Amino acid sequence: MAAKFHLVPIGTVHKKNGRSWIEINQKYAPGLLGLSGFSHIDVLFWFHENDTPEARNITQVHPRGDQKNPLTGVFATHAPVRPNLIGSTRCRILSIINQVIEIKEIDARNNTPVLDIKCYIPSAGSDKDVLVPDWVQETKR
Amino acid sequence: MAAKFHLVPIGTVHKKNGRSWIEINQKYAPGLLGLSGFSHIDVLFWFHENDTPEARNITQVHPRGDQKNPLTGVFATHAPVRPNLIGSTRCRILSIINQVIEIKEIDARNNTPVLDIKCYIPSAGSDKDVLVPDWVQETKR
Repeated sequence: MAAKFHLVPIGTVHKKNGRSWIEINQKYAPGLLGLSGFSHIDVLFWFHENDTPEARNITQVHPRGDQKNPLTGVFATHAPVRPNLIGSTRCRILSIINQVIEIKEIDARNNTPVLDIKCYIPSAGSDKDVLVPDWVQETKR
Repeated sequence: MAAKFHLVPIGTVHKKNGRSWIEINQKYAPGLLGLSGFSHIDVLFWFHENDTPEARNITQVHPRGDQKNPLTGVFATHAPVRPNLIGSTRCRILSIINQVIEIKEIDARNNTPVLDIKCYIPSAGSDKDVLVPDWVQETKR
């Protein structure tokens, strides 16, 4: 399939002295209006350190880098190598001042490009009836 | 910021006769290994019908298209117009046969390009202590 889509960073993850924040680019700052009414956000970001043709052609990994875990398709993991290098993580908002969102912590590295922020809306009955394979329960991330 | 990242579709959403499925492109089918151990997936997709410079410059909307909802930044909504047109939705897996994942239902249109599939792993204590603004509770999607 020849189609391609283009992403632009809307901001950047910063981590320093035990604090974590996302600075939204000035152009997109109006997109934050009303976000302070939420306690949590889902942050979509780009695994920029893995942006090579080789990493994007990896389709199977040992989850969590542990050879004891079974070889698994990347879509059945959260591995930072995958065809499209999009990571997703949920964060608690501590404050929003101008275009800076301070968050409690974030599972992404300093200087990570941010692609999107989505307010987190819980769904009724989520996590009811959810199944995961043994390797998820036996190892910790 | 001049950086740009490129996405390739890994598959496509299909809906027909009340059934919904994702067909993964042959090249990426090995990425499905082990996915059948999970009950749910998070599907990242591209709002391809909105892929215009105009829609990607919208930063504020009335949520859920309802003028009664306050003007809100797109990052404080799940609107299908946003700088990067990535949608995210959770689906229950019904079956996985070769490169076809049949799902119970999906909040995306027929022929939507799929960008990523991530196995869903619940986190302990999720949805504890979550706050949302009034408009979320007063209107239904």
